[in-house]
Amino acid sequence: MKAQNYQLFFIVVWLVMAPSTELTAKTDSLIRYVQPLIGTAKMGHTFPGATVPFGAVQLSPDTDTIPYAVGGKYNPEVYRYCAGYQYDDPTIVGFSHTHFSGTGHSDLGDFLVMPTTGPLQLNPGTAAAPHSGFRSAYQHANEAAEANYYRVKLDDHGILAELTTSTRTGMHRYTFPEQAEAHIILDLMHGIYNYDGKTVWTVVRVLNDSTVTGYRQTNGWARTRTVYFALSFSKPFKSYGSKDFEETQVYRGFWRKFDQTDNFPDLAGRKLRMHFDFDVAPGEQVLMKLALSPVSMTNALANMEAEIPHWDFDRTKREGQDLWERELGRIQATLPAEEDYVNFYTAMYHAALMPTVYMDVNGQYRGLDYEVHTAAGFTNYTSLSLWDTFRAFHPYLNIVNPSRNADIVASMMAHYEQSALGMLPIWSHYANDNWCMSGYHSVSVIADAIIKGVYRGDANAALDACVATASQRRYEGIGEYIDRGFIPDEANATSVSNTLEYAYDDWCIAQLAKYLGRQEVYDRFMKRSENWRNVYDPAIGFMRPRHADGTFRKNFDVLETHGQGFIEGNTWNYSLYVPHNPEGLMAIMGGQKRLARYLDSLFTMHLPDRFFANTEDITREGIIGNYVHGNEPAHHVAYLYNLAGQPWKTQERVRMILKNQYHNGPDGLGGNDDCGQMSAWYLFSSLGFYPVSPGSDEYWLGSPLVERATIRLENGKTFSVEAVNQGDDNVYVRQVLLNGKPLKGYKLKHADIMNGGTLQFTMASKR
Amino acid sequence: MKAQNYQLFFIVVWLVMAPSTELTAKTDSLIRYVQPLIGTAKMGHTFPGATVPFGAVQLSPDTDTIPYAVGGKYNPEVYRYCAGYQYDDPTIVGFSHTHFSGTGHSDLGDFLVMPTTGPLQLNPGTAAAPHSGFRSAYQHANEAAEANYYRVKLDDHGILAELTTSTRTGMHRYTFPEQAEAHIILDLMHGIYNYDGKTVWTVVRVLNDSTVTGYRQTNGWARTRTVYFALSFSKPFKSYGSKDFEETQVYRGFWRKFDQTDNFPDLAGRKLRMHFDFDVAPGEQVLMKLALSPVSMTNALANMEAEIPHWDFDRTKREGQDLWERELGRIQATLPAEEDYVNFYTAMYHAALMPTVYMDVNGQYRGLDYEVHTAAGFTNYTSLSLWDTFRAFHPYLNIVNPSRNADIVASMMAHYEQSALGMLPIWSHYANDNWCMSGYHSVSVIADAIIKGVYRGDANAALDACVATASQRRYEGIGEYIDRGFIPDEANATSVSNTLEYAYDDWCIAQLAKYLGRQEVYDRFMKRSENWRNVYDPAIGFMRPRHADGTFRKNFDVLETHGQGFIEGNTWNYSLYVPHNPEGLMAIMGGQKRLARYLDSLFTMHLPDRFFANTEDITREGIIGNYVHGNEPAHHVAYLYNLAGQPWKTQERVRMILKNQYHNGPDGLGGNDDCGQMSAWYLFSSLGFYPVSPGSDEYWLGSPLVERATIRLENGKTFSVEAVNQGDDNVYVRQVLLNGKPLKGYKLKHADIMNGGTLQFTMASKR
Repeated sequence: MKAQNYQLFFIVVWLVMAPSTELTAKTDSLIRYVQPLIGTAKMGHTFPGATVPFGAVQLSPDTDTIPYAVGGKYNPEVYRYCAGYQYDDPTIVGFSHTHFSGTGHSDLGDFLVMPTTGPLQLNPGTAAAPHSGFRSAYQHANEAAEANYYRVKLDDHGILAELTTSTRTGMHRYTFPEQAEAHIILDLMHGIYNYDGKTVWTVVRVLNDSTVTGYRQTNGWARTRTVYFALSFSKPFKSYGSKDFEETQVYRGFWRKFDQTDNFPDLAGRKLRMHFDFDVAPGEQVLMKLALSPVSMTNALANMEAEIPHWDFDRTKREGQDLWERELGRIQATLPAEEDYVNFYTAMYHAALMPTVYMDVNGQYRGLDYEVHTAAGFTNYTSLSLWDTFRAFHPYLNIVNPSRNADIVASMMAHYEQSALGMLPIWSHYANDNWCMSGYHSVSVIADAIIKGVYRGDANAALDACVATASQRRYEGIGEYIDRGFIPDEANATSVSNTLEYAYDDWCIAQLAKYLGRQEVYDRFMKRSENWRNVYDPAIGFMRPRHADGTFRKNFDVLETHGQGFIEGNTWNYSLYVPHNPEGLMAIMGGQKRLARYLDSLFTMHLPDRFFANTEDITREGIIGNYVHGNEPAHHVAYLYNLAGQPWKTQERVRMILKNQYHNGPDGLGGNDDCGQMSAWYLFSSLGFYPVSPGSDEYWLGSPLVERATIRLENGKTFSVEAVNQGDDNVYVRQVLLNGKPLKGYKLKHADIMNGGTLQFTMASKR
Repeated sequence: MKAQNYQLFFIVVWLVMAPSTELTAKTDSLIRYVQPLIGTAKMGHTFPGATVPFGAVQLSPDTDTIPYAVGGKYNPEVYRYCAGYQYDDPTIVGFSHTHFSGTGHSDLGDFLVMPTTGPLQLNPGTAAAPHSGFRSAYQHANEAAEANYYRVKLDDHGILAELTTSTRTGMHRYTFPEQAEAHIILDLMHGIYNYDGKTVWTVVRVLNDSTVTGYRQTNGWARTRTVYFALSFSKPFKSYGSKDFEETQVYRGFWRKFDQTDNFPDLAGRKLRMHFDFDVAPGEQVLMKLALSPVSMTNALANMEAEIPHWDFDRTKREGQDLWERELGRIQATLPAEEDYVNFYTAMYHAALMPTVYMDVNGQYRGLDYEVHTAAGFTNYTSLSLWDTFRAFHPYLNIVNPSRNADIVASMMAHYEQSALGMLPIWSHYANDNWCMSGYHSVSVIADAIIKGVYRGDANAALDACVATASQRRYEGIGEYIDRGFIPDEANATSVSNTLEYAYDDWCIAQLAKYLGRQEVYDRFMKRSENWRNVYDPAIGFMRPRHADGTFRKNFDVLETHGQGFIEGNTWNYSLYVPHNPEGLMAIMGGQKRLARYLDSLFTMHLPDRFFANTEDITREGIIGNYVHGNEPAHHVAYLYNLAGQPWKTQERVRMILKNQYHNGPDGLGGNDDCGQMSAWYLFSSLGFYPVSPGSDEYWLGSPLVERATIRLENGKTFSVEAVNQGDDNVYVRQVLLNGKPLKGYKLKHADIMNGGTLQFTMASKR
């Protein structure tokens, strides 16, 4: 299905959706621009379901059950299901309560719920034969997705399903059109990236005729993860039952003193599915609440009772949408076209989904040490995809939502303190670290937050944690890196990207040390930060894998992504990855003209298909020439034209990327949204500046997309961007005034924003 | 190996052991009579290792690793390993920290530790080829077992291993005879009654160079069970490592940023074994402490630090043995022969192993609701094998250790309150119920404890719990039993024994209701208590399976145990199971003479081998005629001669059973000790009386084995038994005086004991 067709679909969906919501009446609403379906086709890996900002529950439809692995072997088909939903799929299996947004690998999908009518079916069936199981066909024409609201008609069962949430509780409203015997399925085997053995154990306790608790323990991308739940129905079930699908059950029948199939309230096993049975009248609505906890069933019940002590679905929806209005209202933007509004506010929406609250209403959470902790004075978060998000997402929070980012840093410090390894998170994942991607970019987030005055915890302890993490000799070649100044090719498959990213991270540590007056640390890590030079091969003008003996790898392909010493990028993209010392990089590359020529080539050369096939995570549209916007390593690259003395090309390219890489429609993202990083790039660039090197207090100027935008800062001040003479063709910046005074150079200071004021760009159609 | 040979071995062991202990010097010591090796051969199912009274840790050698099941099928060979150890086995696999004592099914075996020298081996190997793995050959001549002390020389490794414990902490002392590279193996896969899938999940965290924590989660006889540990070495290890034996590991290599094989402190998986490596000098001792917790690793560490804050092995041993002295000192007995002392005090020892403390030093434990609770005002216990122990073990505690039994009742009430089923325990098993055996005998223990003034909690709440349990229509035919007055044969495989036991239990409920003045409950349950009549077939004079239509089963074998409607007993034994109304039973059987003739036949008839083969749990020696002492249902039967007007036959039979069924030597128990029940029978009968019907305040007289015994009651009084003219041949009781006054009839009141005083038997060699 092509993009145009998607857009046609979208209009239909929009029309269907509009009358159903009370929002249409609120003309000042920003959430009406949010299209959760953007990114749900192809490689965006976003989910369309309901959630509140940074909510612990992401209640969303899952459209297939392809196993992640069979017999221990990875099944590449599963990749499409990182967020559980693929727009092109014809059926919905059910609604599960946890989803990552925009990741390139996955997990979660806890507690899938599916309402059905007709004969009881406890298998999901297959998409090819939907009537073979409890899954259902559906039509996009009967589907609507808003911030904190999702609705779909389940054709096979004739049920209208509606979903909304609070932070820790999902709320379901099922409308049954005619009298029927209804079953609500609770599938404890289901999971995203599921495989035999992933569900380690599940427990269910039926407390009374409408309340159920339990937990699901998994081994997946997170090695040891347990999520507890409490579930409540608005109407007592008339009966219930379960089936354990485990083939060999040594003890299950051995001491079976009960018939445990029906109405048995005390269940446990690896492969459980349950059903709750109701008689429903025509038009009857059955509601369900399902709350999560990382700690206990008791806490899950308390979360539910604290957050949604009623059965008013519309109230829960409205309260969550009010949270979204407040979240989106942090930037009041005027944009050239309706489509830009959708892109802009959907980007703000996508940049407020992850990380997620990992803490009960009473402050408790389960730590990496498997103990129950109480977060003292902060909200604890999990699901930090730091390789992606250190670049623009956390800097974005430092302006727009700094108290949130301070809590994220506090969460990272708690992770460090609980870690048996004594490391800050690489990818914080429900009290696990999945160690995904390269670098140790916690240090960038921490340095940036402290230097910008956002994190007010113990800064010296935070620096100690950064140093400890960067000193973990056994992790991903760090020992070799410390000893040699680079990671040898033979020691690590991604030796070059790791070396480059460690060098940048080390510079962040040095900046924090400087800020704290710790000279020894500063000197040591400034020295380490220059290690990028050790993998630059002046003979070819590219970063290149190097052997332990100092020689560069002979067999090397500058266009290929895989097997060349990099991750999610070829050397054309990665050779520009010295964000902390671009001047040094330019010098080694041969000066301004050589850098400009390199950039021109990057954006205009043709990357043959055989190389594209290996770029990962992105559609063909996610590439401009050989510039890969769908992955992160080159996100700062368009801004480097400033340094090369050709700022107009930064302006051209940024505006081009904003238009080409983001559009309305399910396939509106050229690559994984990557937990808000792709969206944060959009937001910064739309505002006309970008944090090329987080850890510094500088932003580099680009070309704004907004006509006007006002950021409501937490300190009570406002910072506005104006683009005089804005227009789709007027991408060039003729003049920049900061509070009426010309801004020299191409950099903006963080303090310039935080002090409040106006940044005025005057746009033109020619440079 | 015949019994005589065992005894020879025992003398050797005794001689080897004696010089090593300081106890030989203490002539007033009672623990010198304790032989933990009694019952470790054949069917006794006791363990020889170290533990304190009712301790949470039972640190004991395991001698084989036969799987409980392969491919879901039960392997009958495993039955011999209920306690982990079989005396005839030639090798020791290692020392694990939890063991049941005398059960007929099993579980546990957590955290097997094995010290080795020579090349590292991470597989246990096989008994046939001991050098194939880390297990070791050993000689009984080099083995010694005392209360809270076990020692063995591991021949393959040349290591002297010694074990001792506190309540929650095991302490190991390994002496290395020569300079060696030593490895201490920690096997997290090992378990008693192990099978693929039993170990649900394990976690290990290495906190520093000598401290390790973690947990083991299992699915076995207990469905969902987790035990946490903390481990500390007296000497830092120089290195450590692990192996995960799981074949398919979907994620384990996928995001592996670390080499996790060696010195990696953060492990998790289903099939982990670890090794800790040491260089040892000649004669060097390496000590280890391993503490358990049902709650968390933090609590396990706290338990260790509270209980054994030092490395003085001898002190821990001594403190535990002092506990045993106090426990055994509750009865000061004078017995005819050294062998009788061993039998008597080993019985007291075996009657103080289970149930076990299930609570941390801070009072916390994990309940059936998976939540962490704090035991308020009582010590929480688990591992209640109530079908066995309601008969004599709990009545024994009510005299000798009533505050302990009060806490056990409080633990049962906590179980009830946490149960999703709203039931008192059938077989309380680490916050699970394995629902093992028939009846709902919690009610007997509760009624007995309240009526005897032992349990001082809310008695009405306890009665409510009893009534609720007895009203669980879905459990084991209770619904049919309530509706029809018996369980139909076609509804339940053990319909007759269940009907008989429910009837007795109902009588207990009625007695408690009467005590509390709750007439309606009394009337209802007294009526139910007569349901035993409904399975008595007057045509054949036996209890017999009955169909729903009221007819008795045609195809019925009075000698066969299996498939006849009973569990662990044939109808010859079970037809006497109306302990609460033996007069009624005698009447229906035809009066005194008919009962006496029935008893004579039972004790003297020959049970053909084909029937014996199915009696379960006992050796051929566990049978006298067709009377099966090795199983419990007939434990009261020898006392029924009193009712039949032939008390001298009670006296003969009791003394015969005391001599025939209990003797020194590893095969000294004719059947499973059944968590102290077999031993409690021995203790009561040795004292000359027995609780035929717990729930009443009466004991029936027999023939004492002791010459004199004084029970130190908790109320400060003493109760003494004297046997004037005692002797092996003087089994007949000529006269009984209570405090100098003749005791009429054959019954003793509980108050007669608790008021203190002397029960004097005058013995004779002829009736």
